Amino acid sequence: MADPDRLRQMLGAMEAVGATPAGGVHRMAATPADGAARDLLRGWMQDLDMQVCVDRVGNMTGLMDLAGPDAPVVMAGSHLDSQPQGGRFDGALGVVAACAAAREVQDQVRAGALHSRCNLAVVNWTGEEGARFQPSLLGSSAYAGTLGLEWALARRDGEGVSLGAALRAIGYAGNGALPRPAAYVELHIECGRVLDDAGVRLGVFVRYWGASKQRVTFIGEAAHTGPTPMAQRRDALLGASRLALALRDMADRAPGLLHSSAGRIEVRPNSPNVVPAEVAMFTELRSPDPDVLAWAETELARQAAMAGEAAGVRHQAGPVERRPAGAFDTRLAALAGQEAAAMGHAAQQLDTVAGHDAVSLATLCPSVMLVVPSIGGVCHNPAEFTRPEDAALGAALLARTLARLCHDGVPA
Amino acid sequence: MADPDRLRQMLGAMEAVGATPAGGVHRMAATPADGAARDLLRGWMQDLDMQVCVDRVGNMTGLMDLAGPDAPVVMAGSHLDSQPQGGRFDGALGVVAACAAAREVQDQVRAGALHSRCNLAVVNWTGEEGARFQPSLLGSSAYAGTLGLEWALARRDGEGVSLGAALRAIGYAGNGALPRPAAYVELHIECGRVLDDAGVRLGVFVRYWGASKQRVTFIGEAAHTGPTPMAQRRDALLGASRLALALRDMADRAPGLLHSSAGRIEVRPNSPNVVPAEVAMFTELRSPDPDVLAWAETELARQAAMAGEAAGVRHQAGPVERRPAGAFDTRLAALAGQEAAAMGHAAQQLDTVAGHDAVSLATLCPSVMLVVPSIGGVCHNPAEFTRPEDAALGAALLARTLARLCHDGVPA
Repeated sequence: MADPDRLRQMLGAMEAVGATPAGGVHRMAATPADGAARDLLRGWMQDLDMQVCVDRVGNMTGLMDLAGPDAPVVMAGSHLDSQPQGGRFDGALGVVAACAAAREVQDQVRAGALHSRCNLAVVNWTGEEGARFQPSLLGSSAYAGTLGLEWALARRDGEGVSLGAALRAIGYAGNGALPRPAAYVELHIECGRVLDDAGVRLGVFVRYWGASKQRVTFIGEAAHTGPTPMAQRRDALLGASRLALALRDMADRAPGLLHSSAGRIEVRPNSPNVVPAEVAMFTELRSPDPDVLAWAETELARQAAMAGEAAGVRHQAGPVERRPAGAFDTRLAALAGQEAAAMGHAAQQLDTVAGHDAVSLATLCPSVMLVVPSIGGVCHNPAEFTRPEDAALGAALLARTLARLCHDGVPA
Repeated sequence: MADPDRLRQMLGAMEAVGATPAGGVHRMAATPADGAARDLLRGWMQDLDMQVCVDRVGNMTGLMDLAGPDAPVVMAGSHLDSQPQGGRFDGALGVVAACAAAREVQDQVRAGALHSRCNLAVVNWTGEEGARFQPSLLGSSAYAGTLGLEWALARRDGEGVSLGAALRAIGYAGNGALPRPAAYVELHIECGRVLDDAGVRLGVFVRYWGASKQRVTFIGEAAHTGPTPMAQRRDALLGASRLALALRDMADRAPGLLHSSAGRIEVRPNSPNVVPAEVAMFTELRSPDPDVLAWAETELARQAAMAGEAAGVRHQAGPVERRPAGAFDTRLAALAGQEAAAMGHAAQQLDTVAGHDAVSLATLCPSVMLVVPSIGGVCHNPAEFTRPEDAALGAALLARTLARLCHDGVPA
């Protein structure tokens, strides 16, 4: 079993990179803080005698040779980028635990206690959060081919900086070809409170909700907030405000089946004395049910049109980014459940509402996610917390699952 | 009469500083573009043999000696800062025309055609717009003593940069004592469409509306927009959205007597995947009627509380910045009307809904504003436009009014 002290030390070193006074981390994709986190990871990979590879969108792997150059690859990891003023565990736990688990497997192989049919790779995917660059799951989607590589590199942040330029600035615009996994396993915090409420310490994500994300822009006209008669104003913020309220109302009409949000808005010119000329609102709809999601997309379009009309402004709906609902690999989920049981724990099967890199990988190879509790379900918040003993238990389950896959081989 | 070609050339040189592709200017207070505009003005002042003075908040004057060191000072000017992506005329016309008018008066005095009892000063007030630093009228209010000097210097922009630091960065943190005016005259575009609709080319502002400005902050909790159950979300943007709509509704309940707006909002963390934890909304209420303004302040407080409650978030109302309604000096207004009549024009008397530096100065000395048409009333917008012949007519009225004050002396 992986050394809990080592895991704690590694997590401590990683959470120091981009640490915020509130106890979280601010380590957005392809910023200098992300670069420093990557440097730390690269050092760990080199300590494990891994071959480090960086691809064009900055995805990083460390490949551990356990079974010769032609053996299939079992891959584990997650992402090191964070939300702005985000938490310490979201993403980082999965990467750090993958390093710790790889060391455990390596030790077993070197001691002759494990014969491996597979090589092992640790991965850090670029820009999972979708906070600085949209969409989320950017690096893993480009790798899986569900997004175009050049398109991904051309994504721009709110300041107009492209992902490509940002990666060059931190020295992580590579040109390598990452190893192709035969199976993918990702450990993550739940980012929900099902496990915490149930007092259960391990979970396995078996299904993922679908998501539909769209930028809706309301276009009015800049005018002086003083003399301009009220009847002549075309205030884009009024359209956006109506849509924000309508989005909430839609979720209330489909309880438990639809999550909706408007997390980011961009207001121009955003001056106290100027009627807002343009407001871009980043909307999200999520559902486990494809029919509900389709209804919600139609209803969003209708509500946006009504909001614009009521406010007397135009609106433009951007392209819809869709991620269909689906399921992870049932054989890997069963295998992880068996390993948890062998450790004396009943792993609970769960849905993930949030997207994760494993959702991208599931289009390529058998994939599964292992889950540990988020206290109070807090996530995307500096107060995000997972107990050290739960993090260690999750890392131990990851090590056992990887060792089992290395020994048995990947299910055909 | 001032040379129209010279005025046009000077306006052209000034509007090139911070020019935007849309045909406006982006020259926010104490930015490098504002510094370049100030450098241009300083050169003009020096060409006019003026003594240039910069005070601690960056207000600049050029003093022209026409009547010896003990003579009263007649002051004219406005502001060179702009809104973000603002127009070319708002503020800049008044400063440029004051320089042109001062040259005209100087020429008359030097030619022996005018005996002046007064000296003449041109002024550029810092941060009139309230776009980068709040409140608006910052420099003229600090000069008039209605705001504290140290408090003004400590105002911070959205990036946390103080006015003091920004002025030091552009070399306009002075330590001079500006001349004290015995009378103040400001030429400005109307920023409304009364003159344009009436086909009248000259106006005089005789009254100013009161204003009440307050930052209202809604405080929810950051959470993942995916898994967090809708019932557990505390979304600060929903509170702000309700208040934006309520503000508009309030104005509709007092037609013509209340202007309301929410021009700027700051959302934290403003990530597409995070429930907004905090939204600060910059509200404005304006009225010519003190009773209506008092009602609106009370109603705003009530609506903010209701909005927060409906959204399940807390709210905090910041200090209220109040500018009472009032009137400019009737003798100066009459005098400007006489000069317009002497030029063959009937100047229309108007209210200003917008605040102007002359409102600050009115607490210190007799003050008045001369007005030229804004085509279509467009203001705080790159499309802001005043016809060159109207700008020249306004500058000529300013020159005549200043010459008359210099000759007759300031009304006691």
